Amino acid sequence: MIYLDHAAATPVNRSALAAMLPYFDKQFFNPSAPYLPAKHVREDYQSAKAAIAHAIGAKGTDLVITAGATESINLAFTVVAGLDPATPHLLTLATEHTAVLSAAKPYGCELIKADHTGLIDLADFRAKLTDDIVLVSVSLANNELGTIQPLAEISEIIRLARQDRLAHGITTPLYLHSDASQALNLLDINVSRLGIDLLTLNAAKCGGPKGVGALYIAHGVPVHPLSLGGGQERGLRSGTENVPGVIGFATALADAKKHLNGNRKKYTEMVELLKKELGGAFSASARSSLVAPVVTGRPRSSSAVAPHDLTKVENAPQVIFLGNPKHHLANFLPLSFPGLDAERLVYKLEEQGILVSTGAACAANKATKSHVLAAIGLSDAEIAGSLRISLGSTNTIDQMPIVARALIDVVSAEIARQNH
Amino acid sequence: MIYLDHAAATPVNRSALAAMLPYFDKQFFNPSAPYLPAKHVREDYQSAKAAIAHAIGAKGTDLVITAGATESINLAFTVVAGLDPATPHLLTLATEHTAVLSAAKPYGCELIKADHTGLIDLADFRAKLTDDIVLVSVSLANNELGTIQPLAEISEIIRLARQDRLAHGITTPLYLHSDASQALNLLDINVSRLGIDLLTLNAAKCGGPKGVGALYIAHGVPVHPLSLGGGQERGLRSGTENVPGVIGFATALADAKKHLNGNRKKYTEMVELLKKELGGAFSASARSSLVAPVVTGRPRSSSAVAPHDLTKVENAPQVIFLGNPKHHLANFLPLSFPGLDAERLVYKLEEQGILVSTGAACAANKATKSHVLAAIGLSDAEIAGSLRISLGSTNTIDQMPIVARALIDVVSAEIARQNH
Repeated sequence: MIYLDHAAATPVNRSALAAMLPYFDKQFFNPSAPYLPAKHVREDYQSAKAAIAHAIGAKGTDLVITAGATESINLAFTVVAGLDPATPHLLTLATEHTAVLSAAKPYGCELIKADHTGLIDLADFRAKLTDDIVLVSVSLANNELGTIQPLAEISEIIRLARQDRLAHGITTPLYLHSDASQALNLLDINVSRLGIDLLTLNAAKCGGPKGVGALYIAHGVPVHPLSLGGGQERGLRSGTENVPGVIGFATALADAKKHLNGNRKKYTEMVELLKKELGGAFSASARSSLVAPVVTGRPRSSSAVAPHDLTKVENAPQVIFLGNPKHHLANFLPLSFPGLDAERLVYKLEEQGILVSTGAACAANKATKSHVLAAIGLSDAEIAGSLRISLGSTNTIDQMPIVARALIDVVSAEIARQNH
Repeated sequence: MIYLDHAAATPVNRSALAAMLPYFDKQFFNPSAPYLPAKHVREDYQSAKAAIAHAIGAKGTDLVITAGATESINLAFTVVAGLDPATPHLLTLATEHTAVLSAAKPYGCELIKADHTGLIDLADFRAKLTDDIVLVSVSLANNELGTIQPLAEISEIIRLARQDRLAHGITTPLYLHSDASQALNLLDINVSRLGIDLLTLNAAKCGGPKGVGALYIAHGVPVHPLSLGGGQERGLRSGTENVPGVIGFATALADAKKHLNGNRKKYTEMVELLKKELGGAFSASARSSLVAPVVTGRPRSSSAVAPHDLTKVENAPQVIFLGNPKHHLANFLPLSFPGLDAERLVYKLEEQGILVSTGAACAANKATKSHVLAAIGLSDAEIAGSLRISLGSTNTIDQMPIVARALIDVVSAEIARQNH
């Protein structure tokens, strides 16, 4: 089995699991208990938090540990709680993860456009950054495309907007939140350098355990707790601390950071190999503006295939490499075989022992078309034929020819089936 | 080391940990992913949920998995969200856990009295159950005293109140929430039989992992999500499912349920042995109304020791067994050595290898006196001298004479030190 869906879930890496184990049954004490073994657990917990924070250029006390990215995002968005949702105070990108869009919705939210590669439209951002906006939320890297957003430019625009407000006596604050779920183990992140006020982290996407996340909160950003209770995490997130989870998160993140450059190089090589093989077999393009594959025989029912599709050479299956060729996570290869049914491709690839996905894995995305791919202007046929390959710790370069071969076989068979 | 603070934290039991392990690094898939191994993970997750639900007489679809009891309680309390907090709509017991009291506060909350054993004052409850009340929250068993509340009687009162409202054309709904964190592994709970609408469960108190809990929600109870996102848990709790955590919870709970009667018997025997030994060494009482220990020599500074304390025989250290002698969790032995400093006792007992606590372990309770013991009418001296012994899987009957000996030695030494 070759697993190519690390953007959906990663196995807990060996060192992280080994680090966690003693905290389940030996150092299991409640970190708030008064005896020494419990105090040691508290110290270990705080060291782990400090290590996680260190990886993003912050201090342990800047982090609030949560149950995952979704909770972190919702916690971040409380900075606009209490404001009238009739006027949008929150600005986010149309291509954000469902967790961001769902959490943003009740607050009244304006969407920034993205270009066909998934990059934020900075002109549109500037235009929509009115004086009512309190929070801007832009993910570090998109979860379906792997497109990396220009956070430094975004935060510079925000800095200028703050200055402008100040100059005009406008006291409305302005904060920048970024969901770094997908990027944490592939990019070197420094919150101060990037000018980020709130950063969402997720253990389960970088070799840590599920059910653990964190929110970095810059000093003075007025976040409100989602839950009240025993006052843990500076009162911002009550409940007995998930000690093994945080230990595992810290260990996995340290491991990812240590191999950052090596991994980036390795994944780039793998992705290039895949693209070369697929590009050799199919008519390839790096843009989403090209035509869909030709269909001969009986006409296809999909109205999304425009007449000009038929101008292509017959039986030349087409692959489109999605995302941004320059600003993308090294381990992402989002692609589309327009006109094919990606769900069938997933199924057929699985028969060959290859696991890929059609996009984000969450309950809300079942049987609906990707809002991300729609937002970057892909046609229905391109969306229906899109796959997300995301590499990770389980992959080796030797697997890539096998993957390419399987993809070529499966796609060719599907084309043949359609043309039958 | 003898650990006597299972109410604060339990080690993950061996079978639970073994059951969890494969889900960290082998069956690590995102339960929402489209390929078969992920679907198997989803099935396993749902089976585990069904098993947890089964243990309380419910169905898996009645449960929402959370990150622990605090989140479950906060989720339960959303049934009164949106109502005007100026009029209390929530009724809870003065002796509830800090998580309950803190979560209740913003909603406007009336407190029901408890008697000196921690039992709910049913007359006070009836009096305060006005037609404005929408939610009643009473824990199954108190976390400091182990006192078990008469949930069946409480739900009968609620049933009659509902009938009464109906008869008078009052449409305000009325729900019963119970926090079963401490009771889950010691009582046989059936939500239908007990007439409970919302039940908070906690994995970490019954041999499962930290960071996992659940809320049972009876059909039609209008709970609102605390976080929005990918729509997991029927949209009530978004975020990728904590699969290993839920597998561990289910396994631990099944194990606890299997040994329910045996454990109850075992703990009862241990507690009786301790009480007998301590009662033999000290002047014992089962009530909190008795006098504090005598202090000779220089007068103590604590104003909490009333003059009548001095009527006792000199140098007769006193132990008071707290809680309800009849309705209590078998593994709880809350006790007080009035006039002594329990924090010193904890420290001195730790030197003897015995770990106990002074009460609830959470950030909010540090360096403050127990609100639970204050609510049942204990004097400051009684509160200051109170310890909570809570037995669990790590304890054996053979440890009890050692514990009793250490307690007697430490308490005697403290008395001697005070009298010096």
